Amino acid sequence: MERQISAELKQLKSQLLAMGGLVEEALQEATRLVLQRDSYDLTRLESVEQKINQEHLQIDEACLDVLARHSPVAADLRLVMAIIKINTDLERMGDQAMNIGYNTEHLTRDGGVSVNLDLPRMSELVREMVRKSLDAFMRGDAELAKQVLASDDAVDELKNQAIRKLVPHMQREPTQIAAALDLILIARNLERMGDHATNIAEDVIFVTTGVDVRHKATLPSNG
Amino acid sequence: MERQISAELKQLKSQLLAMGGLVEEALQEATRLVLQRDSYDLTRLESVEQKINQEHLQIDEACLDVLARHSPVAADLRLVMAIIKINTDLERMGDQAMNIGYNTEHLTRDGGVSVNLDLPRMSELVREMVRKSLDAFMRGDAELAKQVLASDDAVDELKNQAIRKLVPHMQREPTQIAAALDLILIARNLERMGDHATNIAEDVIFVTTGVDVRHKATLPSNG
Repeated sequence: MERQISAELKQLKSQLLAMGGLVEEALQEATRLVLQRDSYDLTRLESVEQKINQEHLQIDEACLDVLARHSPVAADLRLVMAIIKINTDLERMGDQAMNIGYNTEHLTRDGGVSVNLDLPRMSELVREMVRKSLDAFMRGDAELAKQVLASDDAVDELKNQAIRKLVPHMQREPTQIAAALDLILIARNLERMGDHATNIAEDVIFVTTGVDVRHKATLPSNG
Repeated sequence: MERQISAELKQLKSQLLAMGGLVEEALQEATRLVLQRDSYDLTRLESVEQKINQEHLQIDEACLDVLARHSPVAADLRLVMAIIKINTDLERMGDQAMNIGYNTEHLTRDGGVSVNLDLPRMSELVREMVRKSLDAFMRGDAELAKQVLASDDAVDELKNQAIRKLVPHMQREPTQIAAALDLILIARNLERMGDHATNIAEDVIFVTTGVDVRHKATLPSNG
């Protein structure tokens, strides 16, 4: 019985890792859409997001099933709870990637903005956060999870920089206001994806060290 | 043993309802800050948000404890899972209310906007959504939960109206661009609070009917 639950937990962790891969794919595709917005086509992003949604439901059901059949306690129970929470965060990251797709639709409609933002850097940072938070989860590595919390500050700062750059631009080029707003919302969705990765990292720290780093500090945000 | 778990689940539901009350309080206080922004003071909002965070950790621990001691199955297990998820959504609504507080700080710094938005209506709708979703949870009333999904569309539409009103205003009054952006972010945070109430309603529908309404339709948003 003990070995049976171990095998099932291992399987659940692999599923979660695969879901993380889908989220990375959605993020990459959303970023590609923003950068090559003139030929945007949401089909591929929609299909990845649907896969994420299906995985979300399946992992959720599998967790319930493990709880019902094995009644895990202590570390195993905390692990299943962490999987349930991480699964929810990953699913919402899929929603955010999809929102970036819709924002790009608006950006194209609104005519674009003649300002360069470092969105590729922001997107890459968020992607690293997703990967590191899940790697940290797989390995039970709290130190790696802590690196994710540091990257979150960097992503927030990039979003704030974007706003500081776009507001004066809107003042100089009033015809680009709607499009600049779309771009701010894109930066904000990327930042929110980073927030979800941070939630995952916090869960990893909790599950590996038993220390709850949630609610230790509430930092002001532009959000 | 059976009666013991029933008593504990009842207690957990009451705690969750109390947490919902705190979220309503945070929402009201955040809305008051926006409407009377010239004399804003975040102290009260911060104190409510801290209470929400404490409740969040306590409810989470209590759920783990119930799972570990009673190993619930079937309906009881689904109920505990729903409590864990609803608890997370309520905690994030507290974060959003706090964000509205920070946005108000920026709005004041940026000098305000001479446009009237129906933020009181938007806030009231979201408040009703929180209350109805939790009432629906307490009573196991899927029909009431479905009303929350309908209100979510109304809130989204109010946020879109706000953007449609503010973008031309930014074009006419470039000095108010930064402040108008703060106001858009406030509307957006209110909308996100509505999204969390919607997540709660979906969990209620799932736990009461066994029908999963999550991921049935992905609607475009300005988000």
